[in-house]
Amino acid sequence: MIVDAPPARTPMGGHLLDVEGLAAAALDRLGDLAVEMREARATRRHRSLLEAETVALAFFEPSTRTRVSFELAAKALGATTVDLAVEASSVRKGESLVDTVRTLERTGVTTLVIRHAAAGAAHLAARTTGMRVVNAGDGAHAHPTQALIDLLTLREALGSVAGRTIAIVGDVEHSRVARSNLHALTSMGARVRVAGPAAWVAGFEAWPGVEVATTLQAALRGADAVMTLRVQLERDATSGPALTDYVRDWRLDDERLTLAAPGAPILHPGPTNEGCEITAELANGPRSLIGRQVENGVPVRMAVLAALAGAA
Amino acid sequence: MIVDAPPARTPMGGHLLDVEGLAAAALDRLGDLAVEMREARATRRHRSLLEAETVALAFFEPSTRTRVSFELAAKALGATTVDLAVEASSVRKGESLVDTVRTLERTGVTTLVIRHAAAGAAHLAARTTGMRVVNAGDGAHAHPTQALIDLLTLREALGSVAGRTIAIVGDVEHSRVARSNLHALTSMGARVRVAGPAAWVAGFEAWPGVEVATTLQAALRGADAVMTLRVQLERDATSGPALTDYVRDWRLDDERLTLAAPGAPILHPGPTNEGCEITAELANGPRSLIGRQVENGVPVRMAVLAALAGAA
Amino acid sequence: MIVDAPPARTPMGGHLLDVEGLAAAALDRLGDLAVEMREARATRRHRSLLEAETVALAFFEPSTRTRVSFELAAKALGATTVDLAVEASSVRKGESLVDTVRTLERTGVTTLVIRHAAAGAAHLAARTTGMRVVNAGDGAHAHPTQALIDLLTLREALGSVAGRTIAIVGDVEHSRVARSNLHALTSMGARVRVAGPAAWVAGFEAWPGVEVATTLQAALRGADAVMTLRVQLERDATSGPALTDYVRDWRLDDERLTLAAPGAPILHPGPTNEGCEITAELANGPRSLIGRQVENGVPVRMAVLAALAGAA
Repeated sequence: MIVDAPPARTPMGGHLLDVEGLAAAALDRLGDLAVEMREARATRRHRSLLEAETVALAFFEPSTRTRVSFELAAKALGATTVDLAVEASSVRKGESLVDTVRTLERTGVTTLVIRHAAAGAAHLAARTTGMRVVNAGDGAHAHPTQALIDLLTLREALGSVAGRTIAIVGDVEHSRVARSNLHALTSMGARVRVAGPAAWVAGFEAWPGVEVATTLQAALRGADAVMTLRVQLERDATSGPALTDYVRDWRLDDERLTLAAPGAPILHPGPTNEGCEITAELANGPRSLIGRQVENGVPVRMAVLAALAGAA
Repeated sequence: MIVDAPPARTPMGGHLLDVEGLAAAALDRLGDLAVEMREARATRRHRSLLEAETVALAFFEPSTRTRVSFELAAKALGATTVDLAVEASSVRKGESLVDTVRTLERTGVTTLVIRHAAAGAAHLAARTTGMRVVNAGDGAHAHPTQALIDLLTLREALGSVAGRTIAIVGDVEHSRVARSNLHALTSMGARVRVAGPAAWVAGFEAWPGVEVATTLQAALRGADAVMTLRVQLERDATSGPALTDYVRDWRLDDERLTLAAPGAPILHPGPTNEGCEITAELANGPRSLIGRQVENGVPVRMAVLAALAGAA
Repeated sequence: MIVDAPPARTPMGGHLLDVEGLAAAALDRLGDLAVEMREARATRRHRSLLEAETVALAFFEPSTRTRVSFELAAKALGATTVDLAVEASSVRKGESLVDTVRTLERTGVTTLVIRHAAAGAAHLAARTTGMRVVNAGDGAHAHPTQALIDLLTLREALGSVAGRTIAIVGDVEHSRVARSNLHALTSMGARVRVAGPAAWVAGFEAWPGVEVATTLQAALRGADAVMTLRVQLERDATSGPALTDYVRDWRLDDERLTLAAPGAPILHPGPTNEGCEITAELANGPRSLIGRQVENGVPVRMAVLAALAGAA
């Protein structure tokens, strides 16, 4: 049900490769399921639900929160987990991605959770194996579970996102989080404003339901929620604006936030660079949903794993 | 029963250090047990069989398929597993191998699965501790579970290997896989032909049941199965033949394979360098058993762990 | 009960951050509990005791024995474990320690086991999160579970440490093991002699119950047990005495040990540099408790995890 038509060898489920094509009803159902999973985790009610499943964690890029939360989600449902441990694996011998994922399938892995620097890596894995594949982030393309987390977090804060205005601020162009959120939010009927230095938001005015704001002030005006993106300090020193210019023009702070709707909450996919894209006061203040986003990680991923396995 | 006499401190079992000394009956029994384990894994029948065991994975060389399949084998039987995670361990402080394995034993580990660049590392661990030790590859010496896998794969493809001719092509001299296969195949009554550049097959004519072919064509003629070995691209640039010469003289392709018995299957321990020692067409074609070899990894390792623990 | 007052968000337990403030009765009770846990592990009696707990292993410094024994302790009690795998984590993106530990808490981790090069790291984690925190070594400050292990090992060898004289030899100044042992041993009523090159023992004469010996001979005379510390070969080449001088003046050997009480046992936190701070003969001889220290690691850590969770 969830995304692609399942390949012939896994008749009971499919993949979660991106958010495109997920209808509002499917997004809502996954949110409901995540709420149920949150409670089920606390009571250990579903601790054997996926006991016949084997989930491989294949993180080709460093990760803390995403890897840990997928691992805990799988374990909370009783699945066997195995970590590819890329740094110590044959990948270093030059083994190709296709060989690696085929090997995992042949050892009996039923669900592959994959993060990779190359956009399309998860799709490649889905095309070349019979495992269920969950995209945990592929290049600048997609990070669908993060969008599901953000959607649930917004839903719990605002009631519903339909008809609401959500501002996304920063390097939208290079952000898989932003891209997946654009799909999810517009699918749910939200209005999305993207904003940032011109090179980072070019072309997004062509997306249905999306408008581009050319200043932070224009983006914030009347917004019901604001999502700031991480400035990739390690990369942007050369390709983006000077950091001092970015801070001056785009950093979210208390004063600027007064332009948004009263009490409008703030999201950030983490890890934050406090003082850079957002002040420490806001990131840690009462309107910040950043901690809540992390908390929603495990239940949302439990919901995804269970739904893909046809168990929920 | 399986290999060495058990050391005094583990009265109930022994080690799997190499294939030498394993009689045909023992090899056959492990094959039967692996077939049983394959079915038991699917039905989760033995999921508590080794619940009192603790299996440590100590991979001092990078590995994907071997480490993952040992981990899944141990978990499928309910054993507790722990990964030494060499890259993040005290080994980097200069701790000796003997100290490391003694530490594992003293934390309650009952079975050590060890891969190490030094030939003899598994034997050293077996001599200096009371754990059951499974050699997951030691230098160019031995890789006994791979040989067991290959034997099962051949048995399922050919019915029996007794009296059959198996060709092993490539850098036999530096291959622990080849060496363990020579022992296993000759023990089962197969005729083995090794073939490759002269420096890589020198001396093997002295092995009982083994003949050396000086050309690929001579090796293939009438062979009932062909195993090609991985060219170690990272090493052989300097010490072996030029890669272009190797490809010209020794790469297995469709045309050359017509010399073998009709339908003779192809094996490779993986990961393959497609286009180098074997064409991509053959590696992925209907006569390739490469995928089947990987699939047999978990059940064979379940059989080994269970047999060593005296549980099967 | 064990150490600090618990923070408001974990009403049922506290932390184990250091040994200071642990009274003799609490130390004794943890020793008793470890003995019980040793038996419970063998019979698997407590295998579901902590099934509702999630233990994160966050080792920011390399470790074998400590990490493995905490992981096996948690698993023996049925806890879910998750390894931060620092080398492959977002820590490499520059994420702060506080962000990392908050993320772990928000994914549902209930107990954090942390090792870090910075003294105070465990305290920082305890102050900024609601998880139970176990200090697995922070800089040169504290290593409380190692001191509990050593105390249990000494108690089992000597009957009781009260009134006994324990010599600690080596780089006391930079040793978290020594510092935690000083607290634990003096709390139990032992007399402690520290000894080593002057720069490594300066100031310790001010500790209650501790005396400084200026020669190895003076430290050993009549001692009921001797603990030697690891010389940090990787560091001390520049900041400490020349290694040849250290070996000449401070290496423990059979002859020097005759000065101690008859049969006085030897301890070492490991890994040893045999031939450097201790001869191989002594380290592996009948008076060495080094192996026993490692064996006590898992039961002591089971006791700590269970006690902090309020389950024992």
